Amino acid sequence: MVGLLLHLQYATSSTVHLACRSSNLHRPSSRLAQMKHQAHQSPSSSWASLQADVEAHLKHAMPMKEPLVVFEPMHHLSFAAPATAVPALCVAACELVGGQRHRAMPAASALLLMLAASYTHEHLPLTDRPKPKPRPEPMIRHVYGPNIELLTGDGIVPLAFELLARSDDPARDDSDRVLRVIIEIARAVGSVGLVEGQYRKITTGGSGSDGGEVCHVESIRRVAEKIGGEMHACGGACGAILGGGSEDEIERLRKYGFYVGIIQGLLLQRGEIEKEEEEKLIMEEVEKVRDLALMELEAFEVQSMGQGPQSKRLHIGLALEGSQSCNYG
Amino acid sequence: MVGLLLHLQYATSSTVHLACRSSNLHRPSSRLAQMKHQAHQSPSSSWASLQADVEAHLKHAMPMKEPLVVFEPMHHLSFAAPATAVPALCVAACELVGGQRHRAMPAASALLLMLAASYTHEHLPLTDRPKPKPRPEPMIRHVYGPNIELLTGDGIVPLAFELLARSDDPARDDSDRVLRVIIEIARAVGSVGLVEGQYRKITTGGSGSDGGEVCHVESIRRVAEKIGGEMHACGGACGAILGGGSEDEIERLRKYGFYVGIIQGLLLQRGEIEKEEEEKLIMEEVEKVRDLALMELEAFEVQSMGQGPQSKRLHIGLALEGSQSCNYG
Repeated sequence: MVGLLLHLQYATSSTVHLACRSSNLHRPSSRLAQMKHQAHQSPSSSWASLQADVEAHLKHAMPMKEPLVVFEPMHHLSFAAPATAVPALCVAACELVGGQRHRAMPAASALLLMLAASYTHEHLPLTDRPKPKPRPEPMIRHVYGPNIELLTGDGIVPLAFELLARSDDPARDDSDRVLRVIIEIARAVGSVGLVEGQYRKITTGGSGSDGGEVCHVESIRRVAEKIGGEMHACGGACGAILGGGSEDEIERLRKYGFYVGIIQGLLLQRGEIEKEEEEKLIMEEVEKVRDLALMELEAFEVQSMGQGPQSKRLHIGLALEGSQSCNYG
Repeated sequence: MVGLLLHLQYATSSTVHLACRSSNLHRPSSRLAQMKHQAHQSPSSSWASLQADVEAHLKHAMPMKEPLVVFEPMHHLSFAAPATAVPALCVAACELVGGQRHRAMPAASALLLMLAASYTHEHLPLTDRPKPKPRPEPMIRHVYGPNIELLTGDGIVPLAFELLARSDDPARDDSDRVLRVIIEIARAVGSVGLVEGQYRKITTGGSGSDGGEVCHVESIRRVAEKIGGEMHACGGACGAILGGGSEDEIERLRKYGFYVGIIQGLLLQRGEIEKEEEEKLIMEEVEKVRDLALMELEAFEVQSMGQGPQSKRLHIGLALEGSQSCNYG
């Protein structure tokens, strides 16, 4: 699929049409018609198509093999966690800066695995954990015992790093990029990203209040930054690194991902808010962050539909509210 | 410390003196006397010295910083797990093939972290876990709640990969070696090593019997291979890779580590065996594996003490039985 469509629906389904630098020398003559057709696909189906590509890559890279007692739960739990926009954002960022989609696939797959492992561990029945609150999104179905689920998460994370390290192609001499992406992902899933966000969740009592209403909203924002923000930022940055983007492009796509992730985190946590005033504050915050996200994209060449064959088009619609396919919290 | 002493006491404290290829052009005139002095140090103190070097490196690489709620448990749990010979073996293997000690330090530190994270998770009070049996080695002291311990393990693993990826020195152009070591460690701690061993422990009911006595011993041996064997093998191989060893040297030090790890695993599990006949079978297995380990070392140039200044010396004594400092099970 040459034309990259990443649709993240947001509220009024606002979309931005972006030009992407890379050219496709073997583009069929019907390319323009194809792109127009793609542009009219529903945002969610295009997002789902990117996600499906990443999952297909991952299934190929992680074949079901002996010992089945190990790999069967790994397979199940890798794909059982709710989908997030992070892997798709990684692929989209790679293509936006001119890279080929397949270059981003190992990193996108690794990000999917990391989030699945984290989700699995977050839902383990530990002796000091409160019973989970009812949530709007589907909960993980515990097919295995906690012991196996803990171990499976522990097995998934190194597999993700292995896939990344193996993605180095000596012929391309891109090992420095691969090492940089390993550092990016290690930081985002570790003690300065996802894990810190989960600590914050625990220490503030779930997403519970740590003071007045403003403090509660601030606390929700901080959790959203660490959990949603850092991972989406990482997806954007890693895609841009692997696609050969400039430092400016990498940082812009990192920030864009950060804002997208915050919005997603805020909207997901909104379901747990009871006070109307707090919900209003959350939605004001969403609006502010959305504007910041769109500003980061302005630096990329904005073009209208039907442009010449020199560029691919990226449709980035912030499509978070009400999205059923992005429900990781 | 130029002369490398790695002492792993085994039964009768048999030692093998090996020549190491690398030369030290700035060796002080008192070098011979110093080496003779080192050779007479107790094996455990030399092993402890290597371990202390790795821990010092790790403390420097993982400074205590904000947020303390994250880093304080990470520090505590990284050093609370019982020490193993794996990090020291990594450094020793690096020096044996002619590498400088500091080249192996990030990998040795990463291995220490991986084992600490695994140990932490293995001792989490999950709802489907039986109460732990009394064991001869000191148990982990639960300073934090299970929730924090789970998260801390989840934060330690990516930090270990981050340290590895950061150890790449562009000036040396050794990123391919670093990526290879990342793959080695990911496999050893993941679904074909440590995690598989822990699955086996669970599925055979702890180290419990899955049939007759022979089967029980075989089951213990398989767990020892996966938990002790693969990690020590990884330590040996990674050290040799980072030290610039040949493929033959890498594979010999991998096998040597594998056998050392199996012996350690067998001896640790011996404490849980009640039948005398089974214990006898275990000790026969230990003897067999010990001979295999020593055979791998024969390929390295064996020299007596007091040799010329062109070589460092490695004392490898298999020092497992009764060792108080290697008690990871």
